[in-house]
Amino acid sequence: MYSGYIGKLIEELENLPGIGSKSAQRMAFHIIGMPKERVERLSNAILQAKEHIRYCEECCTLTDQNKCSVCADTERDHSTIMVVENSRDLAAYEKTGKYKGVYHVLHGAISPMLGIGPADIRLKELIHRLEGDVKEVIIATNSSLEGETTAMYISKLIKPTGIRVTRIASGVPVGGDLEYIDEVTLLRALDGRTEI
Amino acid sequence: MYSGYIGKLIEELENLPGIGSKSAQRMAFHIIGMPKERVERLSNAILQAKEHIRYCEECCTLTDQNKCSVCADTERDHSTIMVVENSRDLAAYEKTGKYKGVYHVLHGAISPMLGIGPADIRLKELIHRLEGDVKEVIIATNSSLEGETTAMYISKLIKPTGIRVTRIASGVPVGGDLEYIDEVTLLRALDGRTEI
Repeated sequence: MYSGYIGKLIEELENLPGIGSKSAQRMAFHIIGMPKERVERLSNAILQAKEHIRYCEECCTLTDQNKCSVCADTERDHSTIMVVENSRDLAAYEKTGKYKGVYHVLHGAISPMLGIGPADIRLKELIHRLEGDVKEVIIATNSSLEGETTAMYISKLIKPTGIRVTRIASGVPVGGDLEYIDEVTLLRALDGRTEI
Repeated sequence: MYSGYIGKLIEELENLPGIGSKSAQRMAFHIIGMPKERVERLSNAILQAKEHIRYCEECCTLTDQNKCSVCADTERDHSTIMVVENSRDLAAYEKTGKYKGVYHVLHGAISPMLGIGPADIRLKELIHRLEGDVKEVIIATNSSLEGETTAMYISKLIKPTGIRVTRIASGVPVGGDLEYIDEVTLLRALDGRTEI
C-alpha cells in the first residue's frame, strides 16, 4: 500500500516496542515531514547511542562511561545496593532523588516460562559485588510473577552470607482507588499493613 | 538522569508524534539492545525515506516516484477524485480495496485557530486538476471542525464549475454501540438516515 521507502521505514518502526502499525505510519509521515537536519539528528542519535553505550562495570546499568554516574559518585552509600530489573527502573528510583545507595541492574528477571534462568541475568556480577563492603541488598524487582521469583531466588542466595536482604513494599499505590485495584494487590496491602 | 548518548536518543524520540517520555525510554533501551545491523537498518530507513520521498505530481500524496501507484494506474477511474487530508487517510481507503477512483491529498485542513488558510494546503493543485476530465469530487476530509470547514470551502469553490461534489457519510460507526456514541454523531446519523 505504501511505496518502497515509506513502507520500509514503517516496517522498521513497527519493530520497536509499543509501536503498532498506526503509530508507525504516523511516525513515518512525521519523519518525512521533518526538516532534513532534524531527520539526520534522529538517525545519528540512534547510531551513536548503539555505538557508545555499554554496561557500567560495577552495577551493569547502561552508560557511556566505564562507570555510571551513580557508581562514580563517592557521596553515595556504596554499601547499600538496590537490585532492579532494568535501567528504566533505576531511572524511576533516581527520579525520586531520595535514594542514596547504589544499584545493580539485572537486565531481566528469572522466568521459567520464557526459559530465562539465573544464568541469563546479571546475577553473577551481583554476587561478585557482595565480596566488598555491602550491608544491605534491597530487592526492587517488579511485583510480577517473574519479579517475585527473582526476588525469592536472590534472597535465598544472599541470606547465608549474613548480609541484610530486603524487598520494597507492595501495596495500594498512592492515590489509588481501592475499588479499581486487583485482589492480589489488596491482599498484599493487607498483609503488609503497619501500625499508625 | 540518563547519560549523554541515551539522553540524546530519548530526546529525539520524544519529539515524534504520540511518543511520551516513557515510550521514548522504552524505545531507546530497546534500540540499544538490538543487534548492530538492525540499528543500522533503522537509522538508514529514516534517512532514505526522507531523501527519496516526494509529492506525487498529480495527487500530492507522498511517493518515491514522480507519480504514485494510484495515479500511474490507468485502470483507475481518473474522473473521480477523492479529497483526503493526508496520505494515511488515502492508505485507509486503499485498504478497503473497493474505491476505484483516484485521490487528492491536501496535507492538512483549513484551521483558522491554527492559522492554516486555504493557501496553506494543496488546494491550488486540486483546482488545477479540475481543468481535466473530472466528473465527481468526493470530499473525505475528517469529520472534525477543521475537516468540515475544509469540506465546505472546497464545495463552494467547485460547485460553480458544475462538477459533482459529494461528501462521505457521517454517522454511527459499524459495530458501534449507540450508548457510547457522542450526541453530535447521533444527530448526524439521524439527519443522514436513508430508506431501507
